[in-house]
Amino acid sequence: MPAPGPFLRLHPNDDVVVARRPAAKGESWFEGDFGVIAGQAIDLGHKMAVRTKSRGDAIRKYGQLIGFATEDIAPGEHVHVHNLAMGDRRFEYEFGTEVMPLHRPVAPRTFQGYRRPDGRAATRNYIGIVSTVNCSAASSRFIAEAFDRELLSSFPNVDGVIALTHKGGCAMPFDCDNHRMLNRTLAGFARHPNIAAYVIVGLGCETAQASFLTESQNLIELTDWSKSGSSAVRMLTENGAAQAPLMMNIQDVGGVRKTVERGIAAIREMLPEVNKVQRQPIPIAELVLGMNCGGSDGASGITANPALGVASDRLVAYGGTSALAETTEVYGGEHLLTRRAVSRAVGEKLLGQIRWWEDYCRKFGTTIDGNPSVGNKRGGLTTIFEKSLGAIAKGGTAPLSAVYDYAEPMNDKGFVFMDTPGFDPASVTGLIAGGSNIVVFTTGRGSCFGCKPVPTIKVATNTPLYERMPEDMDINAGRILEGASLDEVGTEIFEKIISVASGEKTLSEKQGIGDDEFCPFLPGPML
Amino acid sequence: MPAPGPFLRLHPNDDVVVARRPAAKGESWFEGDFGVIAGQAIDLGHKMAVRTKSRGDAIRKYGQLIGFATEDIAPGEHVHVHNLAMGDRRFEYEFGTEVMPLHRPVAPRTFQGYRRPDGRAATRNYIGIVSTVNCSAASSRFIAEAFDRELLSSFPNVDGVIALTHKGGCAMPFDCDNHRMLNRTLAGFARHPNIAAYVIVGLGCETAQASFLTESQNLIELTDWSKSGSSAVRMLTENGAAQAPLMMNIQDVGGVRKTVERGIAAIREMLPEVNKVQRQPIPIAELVLGMNCGGSDGASGITANPALGVASDRLVAYGGTSALAETTEVYGGEHLLTRRAVSRAVGEKLLGQIRWWEDYCRKFGTTIDGNPSVGNKRGGLTTIFEKSLGAIAKGGTAPLSAVYDYAEPMNDKGFVFMDTPGFDPASVTGLIAGGSNIVVFTTGRGSCFGCKPVPTIKVATNTPLYERMPEDMDINAGRILEGASLDEVGTEIFEKIISVASGEKTLSEKQGIGDDEFCPFLPGPML
Ligand SMILES: [Ca+2]
Ligand SMILES: [Ca+2]
Ligand SMILES: [Ca+2]
Ligand SMILES: [Ca+2]
Ligand SMILES: [Ca+2]
Repeated sequence: MPAPGPFLRLHPNDDVVVARRPAAKGESWFEGDFGVIAGQAIDLGHKMAVRTKSRGDAIRKYGQLIGFATEDIAPGEHVHVHNLAMGDRRFEYEFGTEVMPLHRPVAPRTFQGYRRPDGRAATRNYIGIVSTVNCSAASSRFIAEAFDRELLSSFPNVDGVIALTHKGGCAMPFDCDNHRMLNRTLAGFARHPNIAAYVIVGLGCETAQASFLTESQNLIELTDWSKSGSSAVRMLTENGAAQAPLMMNIQDVGGVRKTVERGIAAIREMLPEVNKVQRQPIPIAELVLGMNCGGSDGASGITANPALGVASDRLVAYGGTSALAETTEVYGGEHLLTRRAVSRAVGEKLLGQIRWWEDYCRKFGTTIDGNPSVGNKRGGLTTIFEKSLGAIAKGGTAPLSAVYDYAEPMNDKGFVFMDTPGFDPASVTGLIAGGSNIVVFTTGRGSCFGCKPVPTIKVATNTPLYERMPEDMDINAGRILEGASLDEVGTEIFEKIISVASGEKTLSEKQGIGDDEFCPFLPGPML
Repeated sequence: MPAPGPFLRLHPNDDVVVARRPAAKGESWFEGDFGVIAGQAIDLGHKMAVRTKSRGDAIRKYGQLIGFATEDIAPGEHVHVHNLAMGDRRFEYEFGTEVMPLHRPVAPRTFQGYRRPDGRAATRNYIGIVSTVNCSAASSRFIAEAFDRELLSSFPNVDGVIALTHKGGCAMPFDCDNHRMLNRTLAGFARHPNIAAYVIVGLGCETAQASFLTESQNLIELTDWSKSGSSAVRMLTENGAAQAPLMMNIQDVGGVRKTVERGIAAIREMLPEVNKVQRQPIPIAELVLGMNCGGSDGASGITANPALGVASDRLVAYGGTSALAETTEVYGGEHLLTRRAVSRAVGEKLLGQIRWWEDYCRKFGTTIDGNPSVGNKRGGLTTIFEKSLGAIAKGGTAPLSAVYDYAEPMNDKGFVFMDTPGFDPASVTGLIAGGSNIVVFTTGRGSCFGCKPVPTIKVATNTPLYERMPEDMDINAGRILEGASLDEVGTEIFEKIISVASGEKTLSEKQGIGDDEFCPFLPGPML
C-alpha cells in the first residue's frame, strides 16, 4: 500500500481538501482520473480548492457550508481568509429529525472510583477552599499552601487542598445574573463529588455573601462536622447545625492571619476523615465527561475531535454522560445539533443560548465571527462555521438529551450540551461546576490545560505537537493523519478516560497544573 | 470640655446628622437651644433627621444633595434606604469655577527611594513575570514560586519575584478595546519602576500575543541582557536585540516544564544585577499616590477619606501626584470635580468617562446606583450620591490637573483622576499600571487589600475596626470620631506615605498579601 498522499477529502461533496502534512507546490491530490496540483505550498491543516469557484459561491467542507468565496478561486489554490468569508445565510432549523439511538453494549463496564455518602461517584479526592470574592483570595491561598506535599504524604488518599480563587465577587448588583452565575459556579465546585470537604472563606462586606451562597444554593455538608472532636472545625460551623457548611468571614474572625490559622487548623483536623476513602468498582455510566478544545488548528476537526466523538458515543452507549460546550465555537453549526435533539424544547433551549450570545456580542459592537484566534487562523481555520463544524465533531452522533445553562447541574444521562464561552478555563470551570468528573481537551497548537479537582486528558491533533510537547500531551490523535483509523484513536481515548477516572495521573496532574484555571464566567457588569 | 455627643453635623445646611458612635434611643443632638432626640437606636455611621421633611423633599449631607425622601420624615428618625432614594436631578456642569491653588511649602522633602537607569523613582524592587493569558498562568506562577524566601535571602535588596497572572487574554477580538486595556495594564506593570526586570510568558496561540504586547506598547528593557554572561538569559532575548524584552511562549519552548526551568534559570541569573540597587534621597514630588476605598461605611466620608484628602493635598503641594479613581463611586459627585478641573478639556474627559459607565451599565440592564454593597448599606450609606461625596473627600481640595483612561500612564503632576471600576483590585491594578508607586486604601468594613509590587497603606475609618483587625489596619482614622482633628490624622497618613515609600513594610506586606490582586479590568466580551 503506498504512503497516503498529502491531501485528505473529508466528504465527497467538498470543494476543498485538507493537507494532512505540509504539502509543497506541485504536489497533488487524485481521486480516480481526476487530479488537482497544488499551485503553492499548503501548510498542514490548510485547505486547497479542488473545484473552480466564482466570487460569491458557497464553499463546502465536511459536506457542509463553511462560507463563500470572496474572489474567483481556481483548483489548486490555497483557500483561506484572503478568498473565503462568512455570509448571511440563514438556517432552517429542524428539531429531532436526525435522532439516531446508539447500540447498547452487552455488558456494563466499571472504573475504580470513590463512592460518596450521598451516592455520587468521584474520580479524585480533594479538600476545597471556596473563596467568595477576590478580597478573600490571598487568605484562601495561604490556607491551601500550608498543605504542601510533605504534610499530605501522611494522607495518601487525599489528592490535595485547593483554593478556588477568582477576580470577582463584588461591585455588581446583588442577585443579578452575574452574581447568580458566580454562585452556581462556586456551589457546583463545593458540592462536586471530587471535593470531599470544603471551607468557605469570605471577606464579610462583599456582594457575593457566603451566607447567600449557601442558602440560595442549599449547600449542605455530607459529614456532620458539628459532632467533630475538633474545636477548630466546630468553630467554623454556623450555630453548630449539622448540615451547615463550614465558613468564615475575615472581618468576623478579625483579620487575615487569624482566618488563615483557623482554616489550617480545621482542615488539618478534617484530613484523617477525608483520607478514609477507598476506590471501588463503579459503573462508567456514572462518569460525566466534559469536552473542550483550545488552540485549535486545521487538524482538530479531522483527527482529535472526531476521535473524541467516537469515545463520547461509546461512553453514552454505556449509559454515561458526555457534555459538549463552548457555544461560540458551536455557533454556525447549531442546526446540526437541533436535528439531534430529543425534543423541540431541548433544541429551542440551545437556540435561546445562541441568541443570548448574539445579543451579548452586539452589546460590545462585535460578532461571534471574531472568535477564531490568531493561532487558529495560522493553523488553517478560516471561518467560525468551519471551526464550529470541527468542534461539533467532538460530540459524535448520539442524540442530544439535554441543554444546560452555564454551571447548571447536569442531571440527565446521555450526550448533553452546556452553554459556556469558548474560552477554555471559563468553559471547563462551568462543566466541572455542572458535575463533570473527567475532562478531555483537544488541542492543535498546544494548550497546557488542567483544572483541579478534575483530571484533564489532553489530546494532540497532530504528531509534531505531540513530539514537541511530550510532557503535556497525553494522547496523539495526529497518527490519524498517518493512517490510523478514527475508531482506533477513539478507543485509545475511551480506555484512557476509564484509566484516568480510576486514578492514573494525567500529565497536567503530574506537573501540578490546575490551581490557576478556576475561572467562573463573569459576563459583567463589574462596577 | 464635655465628651463629644453621639452625633456629628458635617455642614450647617444638612438635614441629617451622623452617629459617631452607636446612639441609643433617647440620646440627642443639640446646637444652641435647638435639639433633636433619637426616636430609635442609630448605628455608627448612620443618619438621623434633624428637620421635618415631606415625601419628595431633597435631603442634604456635606451640604450636598444625597437623595429625596420617599416618605414623610420627622426629626429624630433614622434616615436610610426605607425613606431615602436617588431622584432624577440633573446637574449644571461648571468647569474650572473652583480651582484653588495650594500653598507651596518652603522647602522640598525627600524619601529614600530607588533611582532607575531611565530616571524613574521606585519604592520597591521586584522581578516580574508577565503572563499574557490564563493559559500561561500556571507556568508563570511555578517560576515565581521557585524563588522562596530562602533563595531571596541571599539578595536582601530584592523584594520578591511576582507572577502577574489573570483570567483573560484570549477569546476576544484582536486589538479590541478589551485587548488594548489588557495590553496597557500588562505593559504598565512591565515598565513600572518597582519592577526592576521582567520576563514575559505566553502560551503561543492566544489573542493577547506577547509580540503584539511588546510592539504596540514599545516595551524595552533597561538592562541590555543580550550582553549578559548567562546563556539562560540570552535564550530569552528575541534575536539578541539589546532592548527587546525577555519573553517566551510555552508552545515554542516545548511545554510547561521546559518553560518553567528556562524562566527560573534566567531569573536566577538576573538576581545579582537586580540586587545592586541602593536607596537614595529622592524628592517626594516623584511619588505617585494611588487612592482607593473599599468596604466603605458611614464613617468613611467623615474620617479616613477627608483625612486622606489632607495628605493628598500636602503631597500635591510638594509637587507630587495624587490619583483619585473609582468612577462608579465618584458618580453623582462628578460636578464637584469638573469645577476643580484646570481646563474644560480635563472636565469634559471625566464627563465622557461618566457617560461610558452609564452606557456600560445600560448594556446590562442595570444602573450605577446598584453600587453600594450589602456591607456599605449595613454601614449606613444609602445612595450612590452619598457614597460618592464621601469618596471624593479623598481628593482634598487641589485643582484637578488631568483625567486618565484605565491604566493610562499618568505623566502629569498634581491631583489627577483615573477612570476605573469601584472594584478595589481592578481599580488599584489600573492605578499601578498608570505608575502609582504608593497606595493608600481606606476601609470601614475591613478590606485586607495589598497589590504587589506596590505597598498599600490601609486606613481604618473607625476604632472598633482598627481594634478588631490590628494586623491588617495600618492607621486608625477612627480617632476623628473621638476628637482628633482631620489635620492630625492627615499628617499621620502623609508621614506614613513617606516612611513606607522609603522602605517601611506595610501590614499587608508583612503578611505576604498582594499576589492575588492583580486584576486587569476586562469589561468584555469574553467569547
Ligand atoms: Ca456543619
Ligand atoms: Ca475553547
Ligand atoms: Ca485558548
Ligand atoms: Ca533584551
Ligand atoms: Ca472601591
